[in-house]
Amino acid sequence: MTKEERDRGWLSTSIGGSTPTTITVRGKDLAGEVMGEMSFADLAFMLASGRAPTDDESRMFNAVLASLADHGLTPTALAARLTYTGAPEAMQGAIAAGLLGGGSIFLGPVEDTARFLDRILADLGPGATDAQLKSGAADAVRVAAEAGSRVPGLGHPIHKVTDPRTPRLYELARETGTEGPRLKLLSLVADAHRELSGKALPINGAGAAGAALADLGFTPLIARGFALLARTAGLIAHLSEESESPIGMRLWKEVDKRASETP
Amino acid sequence: MTKEERDRGWLSTSIGGSTPTTITVRGKDLAGEVMGEMSFADLAFMLASGRAPTDDESRMFNAVLASLADHGLTPTALAARLTYTGAPEAMQGAIAAGLLGGGSIFLGPVEDTARFLDRILADLGPGATDAQLKSGAADAVRVAAEAGSRVPGLGHPIHKVTDPRTPRLYELARETGTEGPRLKLLSLVADAHRELSGKALPINGAGAAGAALADLGFTPLIARGFALLARTAGLIAHLSEESESPIGMRLWKEVDKRASETP
Amino acid sequence: MTKEERDRGWLSTSIGGSTPTTITVRGKDLAGEVMGEMSFADLAFMLASGRAPTDDESRMFNAVLASLADHGLTPTALAARLTYTGAPEAMQGAIAAGLLGGGSIFLGPVEDTARFLDRILADLGPGATDAQLKSGAADAVRVAAEAGSRVPGLGHPIHKVTDPRTPRLYELARETGTEGPRLKLLSLVADAHRELSGKALPINGAGAAGAALADLGFTPLIARGFALLARTAGLIAHLSEESESPIGMRLWKEVDKRASETP
Amino acid sequence: MTKEERDRGWLSTSIGGSTPTTITVRGKDLAGEVMGEMSFADLAFMLASGRAPTDDESRMFNAVLASLADHGLTPTALAARLTYTGAPEAMQGAIAAGLLGGGSIFLGPVEDTARFLDRILADLGPGATDAQLKSGAADAVRVAAEAGSRVPGLGHPIHKVTDPRTPRLYELARETGTEGPRLKLLSLVADAHRELSGKALPINGAGAAGAALADLGFTPLIARGFALLARTAGLIAHLSEESESPIGMRLWKEVDKRASETP
Repeated sequence: MTKEERDRGWLSTSIGGSTPTTITVRGKDLAGEVMGEMSFADLAFMLASGRAPTDDESRMFNAVLASLADHGLTPTALAARLTYTGAPEAMQGAIAAGLLGGGSIFLGPVEDTARFLDRILADLGPGATDAQLKSGAADAVRVAAEAGSRVPGLGHPIHKVTDPRTPRLYELARETGTEGPRLKLLSLVADAHRELSGKALPINGAGAAGAALADLGFTPLIARGFALLARTAGLIAHLSEESESPIGMRLWKEVDKRASETP
Repeated sequence: MTKEERDRGWLSTSIGGSTPTTITVRGKDLAGEVMGEMSFADLAFMLASGRAPTDDESRMFNAVLASLADHGLTPTALAARLTYTGAPEAMQGAIAAGLLGGGSIFLGPVEDTARFLDRILADLGPGATDAQLKSGAADAVRVAAEAGSRVPGLGHPIHKVTDPRTPRLYELARETGTEGPRLKLLSLVADAHRELSGKALPINGAGAAGAALADLGFTPLIARGFALLARTAGLIAHLSEESESPIGMRLWKEVDKRASETP
Repeated sequence: MTKEERDRGWLSTSIGGSTPTTITVRGKDLAGEVMGEMSFADLAFMLASGRAPTDDESRMFNAVLASLADHGLTPTALAARLTYTGAPEAMQGAIAAGLLGGGSIFLGPVEDTARFLDRILADLGPGATDAQLKSGAADAVRVAAEAGSRVPGLGHPIHKVTDPRTPRLYELARETGTEGPRLKLLSLVADAHRELSGKALPINGAGAAGAALADLGFTPLIARGFALLARTAGLIAHLSEESESPIGMRLWKEVDKRASETP
Repeated sequence: MTKEERDRGWLSTSIGGSTPTTITVRGKDLAGEVMGEMSFADLAFMLASGRAPTDDESRMFNAVLASLADHGLTPTALAARLTYTGAPEAMQGAIAAGLLGGGSIFLGPVEDTARFLDRILADLGPGATDAQLKSGAADAVRVAAEAGSRVPGLGHPIHKVTDPRTPRLYELARETGTEGPRLKLLSLVADAHRELSGKALPINGAGAAGAALADLGFTPLIARGFALLARTAGLIAHLSEESESPIGMRLWKEVDKRASETP
């Protein structure tokens, strides 16, 4: 592509397009080749990566999305419900409010873990041996410890011993043959952390999901995007429940009552 | 349930919960019964409705989600990309900005059509015959025409003759046995509109999706939620592309240049 | 302006622009004529309307904004704080989440009241006498009652007898000479409602603010915009407090604990 | 305060509250002491800091807000307008979408500059002399250069020689006696950068605003909040204009046409 061609083409997309009679996504005819032929998750995979997943990749990808979909009355679910309380006519606002809490503390660890592992792999270069992965993990954990920063992907406020999603994701990665260097490396990172700190922190579900998505070929940014996609399914359920058994208005009143009792 | 019990239980959810060793969604064990066993779309269906779909329902539901996932460089995709331009470190904000355009003009028609059809059915009462559906459709179209308001679900700015998603959704509804009174009614509404106005407007994809989701048992509110879920998959792809071949900054400059040339 | 000129000029704005050495807003030089010379509220007034307010209009406008700025730990403040809990690095997301609850239930009444009053005035035509305003108010209240819909601008969950902001806004409107037909009409609407229903509902602050902004010449849409501007000031304070004395994480834990105790 | 008292009081706010007959903000009666007595900007200052500004501080604060209010058809204004195109009934969503672009690239520099200057001052300790400020500035610039990272607050894509807001902010800071160590330091940072790089970058308006807000006593987080508050005024104007002379729909069509012409 010459500079002139690239220049002319700056305003373009290779995701999809439509004509009066057809809609195309990633080169496939939406009505004829996608609808009824491909699952929604496979389409999401294809939209982001440009290709459809294999059956094994699809099974793994669906499991990762499922692992991130809902966690009960979390701050994001509460923010969505309280927004619905004020604007029930604009459901897009309530979902947006819920997603906006998906930052460095919640969901962000999916991206952070993928980024952390990518950096170790980039430092090691291609074709690293198991021994090199192990020493790369140990180095990265030591650097984090010296800087006083947390190792992404480890520890969970509720699942203190084992996050039930993690062993299942590892098991499925093996079953589907999608386990790649990042899931392996994350496991070595957890080992290195335990050895260095003497404290056994479990690999959390968000971290394992980030590693799994990266092993499926996605960038850390897209990994975070998929975490938000998964969470959207949970938020729809919370807003549906909120529309039938509201808690927002009453939560406000209880908070207000308690705040005004404070001396 | 006594008033006291209900009262004690106001702050609760039946969507899911977790303990130190387990996570449950809609009564199923997430790690053991959902991950690797159930597709993401089926989980989304179950989170919202409380039950898993049948295979036929699942095929239809996936097709509806696929039909709504992406439409190229639409205002919602552009808003997401322009937001990413200013805040690339907060992907949740760019996705939220994209979803916020899913209102009465875009995506909202999914909800509006479902609501419009629900109202006709409610007026007719349960067990309406085909003849009653036909006359209910004609009445509703006439009322809308007299009020000067648009009939939801009809017409499309680009697909002026046929929206390619619509016949495919009808075909799949028949194949899967999920065609219910709303898809049937929407078709009668289009007929009635053509007879009254003399103008043949196609059933648009959003309208057919709304009717199909309603026939699958979802409320208009949830139907809109699923439209937003589907669109999130498209937005992730746009933001991934934006991070690699950005158009936001340059679009701004071209707009700015052109605006400043205006006398 | 010929069609061609208008066509060429569609991509333009009359709000402002910049060159390498100057920035202009509404025709004024930002550095020389606005900064240090004009208050922020006056600039907001000018940006929206195209002209600077008089001193009297300015005093009234500032009072209206002040009346809408904060209401304690409301659902919008809680949604902003809970969003900050998950994404403290993206303050724009927390403010956005707070604003998204400014819909039909909260803040929306500012717009709805302005729209309701505008419609009555439009039906009466220009130059309506006091007697005509009174009968227009009575008609509108009766229509609302028959339709079973609420009269916008009346009633408040906490300020059941008098909303303290309302008499103050009326007093300031008189002092500044900015009382126009909408504030007058809103008062007649409250009278008509009391006569018809036998129940004395106070004019709420949001309604009085909407009427006052409309009397200052703003459309209902802009009136709502200013309510959101005012609330942004409150949200900044809440997020500042949240960053120092956080309640989000603990609120989540208390909610979660209580939800899991529910049988 | 004992631990028990603090514990009981976790769910409280010192921003404001209301009773059936009164509303209080930061200890002042809203109707009697704020409305009509205090400008909106002064209230915003007081809500965030707990105290009203002096007249001089108020003049400076208003000027800073004015400097950040609008910049024409920027990505944030375009995102707000494109969101309005899809959801004109939910203005809160369009404003939220506009604010969500206020991240690391736009508006974020207000916070980043304040943070950068705070760090230099913290390293120097209290009561630093001019000579120490100068050498602190030089050190910080050198560290940034060695790390290959940009110095916050310097340079502007359009105002390449002088950002017209900057000298005006410095002038007003002197006039109002609010110039503090951060504005002084930022100027030394610009000098140091020019000496080290041989390239004269102007102090940009966002950087000067961040320094000025920090000198007024605000944290970097609140400084960013005020940048968002200021921008909200601009967004209201853009949405008002969009509702009357829309560009969103047509911008979409032009983008779409051009994208589909790309080979």
